[in-house]
Amino acid sequence: METVDEALNKAQVAFLAYKNFSGRKKATFLRAIADEIEAMGKELVETAMRETNLPEARIVNERGRTTGHCRMFADLVEEGSWVDARVDTALPNRMPAPKPDMRKMLVPIGPVVVFGAANFPLAYSTAGGDTISALAAGCPVIVKAHPAHLETSKLVAGAIEKAASKTGMPSAVFQHVHGHGFEIGQALVKHPFTKAVGFTGSLAGGKALFDLANQRTEPIPVFAELSSINPVILLPDSLSRDSAKTASMLAASITLGVGQFCTNPGLIIAIENEALQNFISVLSIEIQKALPGTMLHQGIADNYAKRLAIALEQKGVKVEAQSITRGDTTQGAPFIASVSADAFLKNSTLSEEVFGPFSLIIKCKDINELYAVVVKGHGQLTSTLIGDETEIAKHKALLNVLVEKAGRLVINGVPTGVEVCPAQMHGGPYPATTDSRFTAVGADAIKRFARPVAFQNFPEALLPDELITENPLGIWRMVNGEFKK
Amino acid sequence: METVDEALNKAQVAFLAYKNFSGRKKATFLRAIADEIEAMGKELVETAMRETNLPEARIVNERGRTTGHCRMFADLVEEGSWVDARVDTALPNRMPAPKPDMRKMLVPIGPVVVFGAANFPLAYSTAGGDTISALAAGCPVIVKAHPAHLETSKLVAGAIEKAASKTGMPSAVFQHVHGHGFEIGQALVKHPFTKAVGFTGSLAGGKALFDLANQRTEPIPVFAELSSINPVILLPDSLSRDSAKTASMLAASITLGVGQFCTNPGLIIAIENEALQNFISVLSIEIQKALPGTMLHQGIADNYAKRLAIALEQKGVKVEAQSITRGDTTQGAPFIASVSADAFLKNSTLSEEVFGPFSLIIKCKDINELYAVVVKGHGQLTSTLIGDETEIAKHKALLNVLVEKAGRLVINGVPTGVEVCPAQMHGGPYPATTDSRFTAVGADAIKRFARPVAFQNFPEALLPDELITENPLGIWRMVNGEFKK
Repeated sequence: METVDEALNKAQVAFLAYKNFSGRKKATFLRAIADEIEAMGKELVETAMRETNLPEARIVNERGRTTGHCRMFADLVEEGSWVDARVDTALPNRMPAPKPDMRKMLVPIGPVVVFGAANFPLAYSTAGGDTISALAAGCPVIVKAHPAHLETSKLVAGAIEKAASKTGMPSAVFQHVHGHGFEIGQALVKHPFTKAVGFTGSLAGGKALFDLANQRTEPIPVFAELSSINPVILLPDSLSRDSAKTASMLAASITLGVGQFCTNPGLIIAIENEALQNFISVLSIEIQKALPGTMLHQGIADNYAKRLAIALEQKGVKVEAQSITRGDTTQGAPFIASVSADAFLKNSTLSEEVFGPFSLIIKCKDINELYAVVVKGHGQLTSTLIGDETEIAKHKALLNVLVEKAGRLVINGVPTGVEVCPAQMHGGPYPATTDSRFTAVGADAIKRFARPVAFQNFPEALLPDELITENPLGIWRMVNGEFKK
Repeated sequence: METVDEALNKAQVAFLAYKNFSGRKKATFLRAIADEIEAMGKELVETAMRETNLPEARIVNERGRTTGHCRMFADLVEEGSWVDARVDTALPNRMPAPKPDMRKMLVPIGPVVVFGAANFPLAYSTAGGDTISALAAGCPVIVKAHPAHLETSKLVAGAIEKAASKTGMPSAVFQHVHGHGFEIGQALVKHPFTKAVGFTGSLAGGKALFDLANQRTEPIPVFAELSSINPVILLPDSLSRDSAKTASMLAASITLGVGQFCTNPGLIIAIENEALQNFISVLSIEIQKALPGTMLHQGIADNYAKRLAIALEQKGVKVEAQSITRGDTTQGAPFIASVSADAFLKNSTLSEEVFGPFSLIIKCKDINELYAVVVKGHGQLTSTLIGDETEIAKHKALLNVLVEKAGRLVINGVPTGVEVCPAQMHGGPYPATTDSRFTAVGADAIKRFARPVAFQNFPEALLPDELITENPLGIWRMVNGEFKK
């Protein structure tokens, strides 16, 4: 497609300049993006509210998170140690052969295409974590606007463009394209100048882009966040003491934001006994009290209704509780159901994501069946274990398996609420994401858009600043095997 | 296939134990592998010589490299900082929401399948860099023996098994399978318990495994080293001063080991002038003086003959020099040819690898045409620039493009000779490798077989040792944003 080809040609030209900009210079750009987003004030908040049905407090909070990650990545690249620099100096007299001078650092991978998420119009969209971490790495970004919040996307794109212009960036360091249908997205992923893709959305959509990227003459990495049902395991002894408190905590997590989070707890796994009955009773009351909420857009509401109906008609599934429904098809009503572990294990449909305020309780006969459910589970963003320390210590074998199934393990908490911090891991084995080796949230997200290059026998004057012997940037480096600044 | 299924089931059982072994314990295993390899003495050397036609000095050298990387990875995991630990402590009173305790480290990815390389019977084969870095990470390994050096592979496998037994490893921490045809290899890559693949070999073979891995229900990473022609660019002013010295240096690199290195310089790019004529004259004399050598096996020798013939029959290609040939089809004779940049740019066949002691000289009309040849080039393991510092400094734009084309840039050296050190990057944009974000040589090769997991709100007693607050292992960690020990 002509526009796509033009956009990537411009991005490649921008790349050859932008990739060499210092961390300090890129930081001024990223901070200016945050400033410009804030400068739009109410206009942005109201546009996003109108397009997504999300309440003001949530949008304001999400804006704070977005400007927060702009400034976090600005700090990260200004400081500069993220490039993982390694310096091995020459040993010209080594026998039998001299050791050459070798130095290595991460360099940006090239133009990146980002598909924004429907459920985070700001924090995972046009100026979301993918865009900002790619820009921080030194990669130009082309955002394919999400059609569900196109006006919001245009406003944010305008802010990024203004920031780029004010801070002297190449004009095509950021480009915004939109249009319905799959053609534009496919053309963006297939273009030879595209070197990586960020995507958050459906399993079918993300997998299609992943396949397309791998079928290119030059395959490229796709960081797609696809599908996660975030199991929560309730250990029996602890549940008998804390069933009411646990139920309240989980009800809040299930219904948060009308269940429209990738970390929504969609599966609760426990042993069938009196404590579980108490838990279900309290959870049912909370779910009945919860109100339905308007979902992000009609497509998501319809999909929730469809997926929920499919789950509920599976063999052995019993509705435990639902909130009132108002006959409004744009709304999602909280819902919980239960099924025996035996029926669950026989039916892979019940492991599929129902995106919305729904959770399925798996009733296990005993601890062995609970283990069987956990072992059979596929990749997740998170797995949660609820139980006191003594009881969890008895089930280290369970933890041992859970580590293989998710990118983040939570003890006595809820999976929703993804902290932005260096230790965050947002990504997990397939189908949670297409590359479990990288996080989409937190400082390490920048690593997705970089690759290492070694410089052998370079004169000092030709080395990137990060690798010059005297360390003019004062970054952390591994020098002849020792970490030092 | 039954054997494959059995092997992977055993590997998965071994994994659930082995992954939790301490770095110290894994180190005893890796060092024992080195000891057992050395203990085989002449038997291993002679078997490898017989199967590969490589001379004794080379095999002894390669054995040293193999035991060297066993001990290097032992040191690495014993020290322990490779897990990239991050600790972000809780802020329970933070407003508007408390910050949870979050910690992160790399954990092993699962059972790894390794296909050894024909051209390195020891260092990139059964106990090669892929196997040893995967074992170091905590992953069981299944090696598919290379049929061209099966006896060598069996001997090394025996050494690894003995080492595993002596140091108390699970028996299936390492398994050795062999057999002709593609079925076993395909079944190994497709098995659900396989979590990563290491491969060194042909573009067609590696790409087939890469595609297979991506078509699985759960796609898995493939680290395949495929094809690289390692361009060497001769800058004109410097060449006019140093043409004879440069020619001798390159002749040695082209003919080293009968050209059977993935870093063999297959392309020499220069501006057509008197200096280049002098260079070609000296290089021709060196090539004529060089003797043909017996190649690794008949298949490689036949392939060299075939690929060379294809290259030489392309339009505009002129033979510049060849060594004597002896009419022995197992031998590879050094060969150089030249072609105009114009003809080269029009013919993609000339960019394909000719695995053996062959190099093609691209004669450019001027510096603009030289740039055009570089810009058009695809991904490589290495790119080399020959010229003095002043002249290179005038061509920073060339360096700026070269960084995008290769994993390692060499100035005034040759691409052959891959130093094993922390700053090494052996891997490059496709088709050099299938994942340019990881190296196959040096300490960072371990990162290919690991993925990060975050531990949220874990009691100290349930944390892995690497993440315990008091840092009992004394490793480097990022704690609340600061690197410390």
